[in-house]
Amino acid sequence: MNDATMPMPYRRLGRSGLQVSLLSLGSWVTFHNQVDASGVREMMAAARDAGVNFFDNAEVYANGESETLMGQVMGQLGWNRLDYIVSSKFFWGLDRGTPDAPRINGRDTLNRKYLLQAVDGSLKRLKLDFIDLIFCHRADPHTPVEETVWAMHHVIEQGKALYWGTSEWSADEIRAAWEVAERHHLHKPVMEQPQYHLFHRKRVEQEYARLYADIGLGLTTWSPLASGLLTGKYRAGVPAGSRGAIQSLSFLREGLLDARKNAAVGELDAVAQDLGCSVAQLALAWVARNPRVSTVILGASRLAQLQENLGALAVLPKLSTEVVQRIEAITAGLAE
Amino acid sequence: MNDATMPMPYRRLGRSGLQVSLLSLGSWVTFHNQVDASGVREMMAAARDAGVNFFDNAEVYANGESETLMGQVMGQLGWNRLDYIVSSKFFWGLDRGTPDAPRINGRDTLNRKYLLQAVDGSLKRLKLDFIDLIFCHRADPHTPVEETVWAMHHVIEQGKALYWGTSEWSADEIRAAWEVAERHHLHKPVMEQPQYHLFHRKRVEQEYARLYADIGLGLTTWSPLASGLLTGKYRAGVPAGSRGAIQSLSFLREGLLDARKNAAVGELDAVAQDLGCSVAQLALAWVARNPRVSTVILGASRLAQLQENLGALAVLPKLSTEVVQRIEAITAGLAE
Amino acid sequence: MNDATMPMPYRRLGRSGLQVSLLSLGSWVTFHNQVDASGVREMMAAARDAGVNFFDNAEVYANGESETLMGQVMGQLGWNRLDYIVSSKFFWGLDRGTPDAPRINGRDTLNRKYLLQAVDGSLKRLKLDFIDLIFCHRADPHTPVEETVWAMHHVIEQGKALYWGTSEWSADEIRAAWEVAERHHLHKPVMEQPQYHLFHRKRVEQEYARLYADIGLGLTTWSPLASGLLTGKYRAGVPAGSRGAIQSLSFLREGLLDARKNAAVGELDAVAQDLGCSVAQLALAWVARNPRVSTVILGASRLAQLQENLGALAVLPKLSTEVVQRIEAITAGLAE
Amino acid sequence: MNDATMPMPYRRLGRSGLQVSLLSLGSWVTFHNQVDASGVREMMAAARDAGVNFFDNAEVYANGESETLMGQVMGQLGWNRLDYIVSSKFFWGLDRGTPDAPRINGRDTLNRKYLLQAVDGSLKRLKLDFIDLIFCHRADPHTPVEETVWAMHHVIEQGKALYWGTSEWSADEIRAAWEVAERHHLHKPVMEQPQYHLFHRKRVEQEYARLYADIGLGLTTWSPLASGLLTGKYRAGVPAGSRGAIQSLSFLREGLLDARKNAAVGELDAVAQDLGCSVAQLALAWVARNPRVSTVILGASRLAQLQENLGALAVLPKLSTEVVQRIEAITAGLAE
Repeated sequence: MNDATMPMPYRRLGRSGLQVSLLSLGSWVTFHNQVDASGVREMMAAARDAGVNFFDNAEVYANGESETLMGQVMGQLGWNRLDYIVSSKFFWGLDRGTPDAPRINGRDTLNRKYLLQAVDGSLKRLKLDFIDLIFCHRADPHTPVEETVWAMHHVIEQGKALYWGTSEWSADEIRAAWEVAERHHLHKPVMEQPQYHLFHRKRVEQEYARLYADIGLGLTTWSPLASGLLTGKYRAGVPAGSRGAIQSLSFLREGLLDARKNAAVGELDAVAQDLGCSVAQLALAWVARNPRVSTVILGASRLAQLQENLGALAVLPKLSTEVVQRIEAITAGLAE
Repeated sequence: MNDATMPMPYRRLGRSGLQVSLLSLGSWVTFHNQVDASGVREMMAAARDAGVNFFDNAEVYANGESETLMGQVMGQLGWNRLDYIVSSKFFWGLDRGTPDAPRINGRDTLNRKYLLQAVDGSLKRLKLDFIDLIFCHRADPHTPVEETVWAMHHVIEQGKALYWGTSEWSADEIRAAWEVAERHHLHKPVMEQPQYHLFHRKRVEQEYARLYADIGLGLTTWSPLASGLLTGKYRAGVPAGSRGAIQSLSFLREGLLDARKNAAVGELDAVAQDLGCSVAQLALAWVARNPRVSTVILGASRLAQLQENLGALAVLPKLSTEVVQRIEAITAGLAE
Repeated sequence: MNDATMPMPYRRLGRSGLQVSLLSLGSWVTFHNQVDASGVREMMAAARDAGVNFFDNAEVYANGESETLMGQVMGQLGWNRLDYIVSSKFFWGLDRGTPDAPRINGRDTLNRKYLLQAVDGSLKRLKLDFIDLIFCHRADPHTPVEETVWAMHHVIEQGKALYWGTSEWSADEIRAAWEVAERHHLHKPVMEQPQYHLFHRKRVEQEYARLYADIGLGLTTWSPLASGLLTGKYRAGVPAGSRGAIQSLSFLREGLLDARKNAAVGELDAVAQDLGCSVAQLALAWVARNPRVSTVILGASRLAQLQENLGALAVLPKLSTEVVQRIEAITAGLAE
Repeated sequence: MNDATMPMPYRRLGRSGLQVSLLSLGSWVTFHNQVDASGVREMMAAARDAGVNFFDNAEVYANGESETLMGQVMGQLGWNRLDYIVSSKFFWGLDRGTPDAPRINGRDTLNRKYLLQAVDGSLKRLKLDFIDLIFCHRADPHTPVEETVWAMHHVIEQGKALYWGTSEWSADEIRAAWEVAERHHLHKPVMEQPQYHLFHRKRVEQEYARLYADIGLGLTTWSPLASGLLTGKYRAGVPAGSRGAIQSLSFLREGLLDARKNAAVGELDAVAQDLGCSVAQLALAWVARNPRVSTVILGASRLAQLQENLGALAVLPKLSTEVVQRIEAITAGLAE
């Protein structure tokens, strides 16, 4: 199933001139918590060999340790800086081990004070001169969009980042940011990182619909397998060692055990078998098939898992209209 | 009276994304003149423990020594830079001990030459890479607002400050600054530092009224106790060691001994006793109750005084409509 | 024929305030491939002695070696930085000797990531603090013009370049870049580097016609001798050692052997003999005669060839209306 | 006559917030050529003692040596940087001792290449981090005003200068520069340095008339004594050692010997005697009396001469309407 010779497609990140690999590697959950330095190096090298050029990260992942790990590994791999793209995201801030102190401006904010310092911290951990893509990890209703746009512009003008975007912002918030940047001649948001998979579609397909043409929004989508639900592994309860079993991710558990969705996954499995692939590969290919998606961020805790997921590229050409209609029929009414 | 367990509220600094503690600590009059390094460290640590995150300063306070002292103490305390906010203010310039030389561009001005150099001087004394809030300490009728706005913008773009504002500017001047910044795509003023207490209300409550909605002006108010008048200590004349007894503050004396105001303070004391608090705490709570006020800057020459003032937080929920009506009746006609 | 005493004319680079010598020296094809360091030094010194002040280069020429060579020689010559103008051009990127790796953002692009890094690389190879003129070597349909204009602006604001322009862009693309710069208050494109010679005229004479007046476009033209066709050397087939014989330039061969054009060159030779000059000098003078041309970039693999080409200056005053009419008649219908 | 106790008045530099002393010291002609380091130090110290805070210079004065000298002396005097204002001016460029080389972009230009490098050179010679006032020494018809304004803006944004202006530009050119800066949100020109004295009045009094109100133009005027004509020293021919006798200033000679003007100087001398001052002091006071003049730049080759000129301050209050009418009557028809 793992077709290592399948060439990686590249897509423009929205209307920008940057080209990202259709499949990319994210460090969320896994780096530091489930994978150590040698595992990270093994997976990043394999991803790069398969044509992956985008590695997604965030300040908050493993409380900064995910960035530290990626920075360490990138230094060892010695890639040419033009050949790979690194992101980070900012909003929640770092836990500094001092829970009692008020941390009013270093947590849950997109204000100028936090953003400027947080980017500097990420650069240090990543051991980079610049981060390719910086995201506002969530919208902050308590900071004016104009203040955040100015801060993003400032970071880009200082050469510390190349492009900026948002993650899980509403269409209205994204447009507000774009408009204030256009009016004040600042760098505009280029991309958004939304959740997107067979059971979570409305934002990408409906809410953002006008933004693709109006402002050229690009998407770097996360959770293509619905935290593992779309691998079928939760059809018989929560397996040990899975995300559903991680304490800090307990908020996911109820969704992962949803009976109707797991039943649908069983039906999708039949479709996958007809195509000679796994249900996870089918689900990944379905996300990648949407031309609005610039890149599908894969998470993996083992090399074999990454290799299997990269194999979704081979499934992409098999997604005929008929196959897609079967998928749509199976998942109808189940997607947010 | 001093309820150390009362959690500190935080408010946005006007429309900005920065959150300031409702009570904050100012260094005016006290630092260097009345309090030495160990006293400053003690008070700043106590304030921080109580949730204070904003420490107000100015170039002119103790002719630069107040900044030097605060810089020294901050270095010792080793706080995380995200957790505290420092301000400075610029207009009068430093006395350089050379009274005979003309000091035309280093005093009473907001011109580009003075501002750029003054900010550099403050950064050096404060031992900081950036000052969170910089204020134009007074309006300068001899410098175009556009020149001052460009200079403030320049300082922020250089990363030497995060936000800028004004102190004791007229509503018209503040709006002029905001408009020139909007037109030329420069950083806009975010906050104003006005005098505000029971006997000085018109600017905050009437003159600035439109600015809150129009430009989102935030307030960091000073002199909440009317230089001590609202503590009741001047009801029997000027006590030794009080502000009213300080030579350089002699301009305050007449106001502090105002008979009608001191009589009103006596009546307010009765209200305070009914609430189980001091008249100073009542007066502080009254200022903090105004939602336009982002933070009430406290001054203190002793730790006990600071602790008492911080206790005003516990009075805040006791300010019922009835209590406020009593206060208004007592002070009617006495406020500028 | 080589009139070393003929003073070099200087022309403004379009509407800009920079003055370029009417004849200039380009490194394309020759530097590193046909000429080594001592040859380059000899030619650059001779060109400078003849009044040449512009030396044209590009990242892609000899895969960066042309810049390295020019940087080395400029260091040895020790000229005053005000007295010479250096260019580089960016689009194709460098071959990094790793053909297997995907090089999606380092090749055939004008995106922000590539441009910012490529300019830094050129500065290093050229051993310069700034490049006078940077060109977008080709238009990139996959990057928004706005992104490219912002990147050019960024490089100029950082002091790494003085002016920017395009090479072989359509009139529409050039105007789009100019307009987005005007709207967002960014540095505008100043010059274009088009191919221009007796057999390639339409772009310069027709397509760009409105741009000269509307935006003040300047031209630094390349290939004035049509890759040697206009020297007459291809009238009897491809000589050994000529461009037509170079493997990597094989795409030129068919054009160089065009029978009708070579016949026309024979007729032009007769005109040249009447004027007492070579046909190459005649063709160069014809290009220089167009007032839209700011500078004619000469390529040369030997000092004698450069000297002969510089001699075209002496032909310029001999191009009477009658002579030009003879040239036009001979080449009628042969020009793209 | 020399009233050292007369306090120096200060005027705003046009609409800017910078205050310049009404009399200032210029280095043109004298520094390096007529006055050595110890003489310069003596005069600068005396001027400063008299309240002078502005010291005028230019790159071209003594071919850079005037800046070198002033830089050396300022270092020795150890003044506070807020207390003095230094200018330089750019257009003609430096003679580099290589007359044969073409110096197309380093002479008689206001293009970006020249200006950025020239300012860096001046900073180095002056041993300063920033120059307070930079002037475009003449208008350059061969460079677009927009290019020059962007370069001035760039220098100010880099912190290398505080304000920029022009010298001997037409009203139309000054307004063009102001308008392009307003449109593109760049730093605007603040001041102009025109020739202004009793025999040269039209530009200041007529041509610039609208600019004072429209853009708030300030003036730093030069040649208040008409190169010495208004001292009366040319009434009996050219004295040895005077400007009229300097070879490089021979273009001045004819004007200095103008019979009608020298006769008028004789009549002005009578007015001066009535006021108890010298004719030079009278002429200086007449220039200073114009409220459009921010500062009158004095040149002096000897300390005594400077002292005498500074004495013009005492004459200023004696210029009654009657006295001015006498002066106007004497010079009627003689002024350009």
